[in-house]
Amino acid sequence: MTTLTVVKIGGNIVDDAAALTQFLADFAAIKSAKILVHGGGKLATQLANTMGVQQQMVDGRRITDTETLKIVTMVYAGLINKTIVAQLQSLQANAIGLTGADANLISAYQRRVTPEQPIQYGLVGDVNAVNSHFINTLLQQQLVPVIAPITHNGEGQLLNTNADTIAQSIATAMSTLYETVLIYSFEKKGVLLDVNDETSVIPLIQPTYYQTLKQNQQIFAGMIPKLDNAFSAIENGVKKVIIGNALEMHQLISGQSGTTIQYE
Amino acid sequence: MTTLTVVKIGGNIVDDAAALTQFLADFAAIKSAKILVHGGGKLATQLANTMGVQQQMVDGRRITDTETLKIVTMVYAGLINKTIVAQLQSLQANAIGLTGADANLISAYQRRVTPEQPIQYGLVGDVNAVNSHFINTLLQQQLVPVIAPITHNGEGQLLNTNADTIAQSIATAMSTLYETVLIYSFEKKGVLLDVNDETSVIPLIQPTYYQTLKQNQQIFAGMIPKLDNAFSAIENGVKKVIIGNALEMHQLISGQSGTTIQYE
Repeated sequence: MTTLTVVKIGGNIVDDAAALTQFLADFAAIKSAKILVHGGGKLATQLANTMGVQQQMVDGRRITDTETLKIVTMVYAGLINKTIVAQLQSLQANAIGLTGADANLISAYQRRVTPEQPIQYGLVGDVNAVNSHFINTLLQQQLVPVIAPITHNGEGQLLNTNADTIAQSIATAMSTLYETVLIYSFEKKGVLLDVNDETSVIPLIQPTYYQTLKQNQQIFAGMIPKLDNAFSAIENGVKKVIIGNALEMHQLISGQSGTTIQYE
Repeated sequence: MTTLTVVKIGGNIVDDAAALTQFLADFAAIKSAKILVHGGGKLATQLANTMGVQQQMVDGRRITDTETLKIVTMVYAGLINKTIVAQLQSLQANAIGLTGADANLISAYQRRVTPEQPIQYGLVGDVNAVNSHFINTLLQQQLVPVIAPITHNGEGQLLNTNADTIAQSIATAMSTLYETVLIYSFEKKGVLLDVNDETSVIPLIQPTYYQTLKQNQQIFAGMIPKLDNAFSAIENGVKKVIIGNALEMHQLISGQSGTTIQYE
């Protein structure tokens, strides 16, 4: 099996033009087949403020009404996605920017209000299926898919969808065809034992240790959804997940930096 | 040779949700391989007004500074493109939305100021090359490319590009592989002898007649760039160009409506 590297970059890198350029140069140099999933950054919130569309976040997730969906579609699928694609093209990476609606890449269903999930998120989607066949045809043509965190329900409705979850879903779906490594890259050096100490990176987390860390409340709450996504990936075929600094891409891939999430 | 239908829809249809839905249903029902190229409509101007970014048009072309490029990228490549793709997906057309940067689909060079062309258009691109090979791989997978009027220069710069020209360039490039018909659809019934009389549609324009019409100043000035694009297409391999009302798609294809541009 050939290797596939799925990289998710977080918002802070997307917001910083110089950091983004450095990241993209490192990403373009990755030799294996590769896919980039990007988040949204603060641009959507800034545009919403300019347009006078009030934003409401719950646990870091954006409540998405009709006007907010237009804004995230413009910013994620338009500005950020195409800025990244054009830069990658200049770096000899044959990038192709897509949302989940394009070629029915990622179908989703709108998150419902239930007794267990009482929050009305609006036009937010949870992943239903990934079109791994089409992604594979792109990879076989040496194309580099660049995925914006927008999906659709197949009935004409676009849906705002968490980029970490999209990256995990794509990595999982592709793991039947490739030896897949998923990298969650952001502004921190990895999963930290002490959120205020950048030197406290945990180099390796395996399932048993994760349970211990959670029970002892040693994991920063904001990191738990990302780690849950990481464990879901390795439980479903992904070889390993690496969490670390977007500006240390080569060290993350070589195992010299970041936190590796792997089975025993 | 199998038939390929390249349809360009103009701004007025894009701005009208009900008209767009009707158009897309008719477009999705076209049986041949097909490509949709869309313009921008007034949404970009509206967003620019909301954001306080002054817009300047010269001969219907938008002077594109850095802030305006961000706006057209958000509106054309983001909101309009993905709204159309999601709707087509619900109509069983497997649409994939792309700009010229994606998969290096359309490379362009920035329009320069010269003694003959003294206007500083800014980040506006003129088409250099179309990646007909990649478009063909999409068509062979029964995908329906939906193209936003944004290109790139291969050096990381996105460029705002006229949608009529993109449609003509794509139709011309694909005409070596397909019997290609190009349809310019908009809010009028065709090329009119009297711009105020919708019943004055000219059914057929051939090169000699076009020269006569131009010499006698019988053609509305705003229509001349579109007709020049149409003649460029048929001179370079496109079988015919049809100009007419976007809400009469089937009649345009069957020749019952609109203006046909064809060789003698």
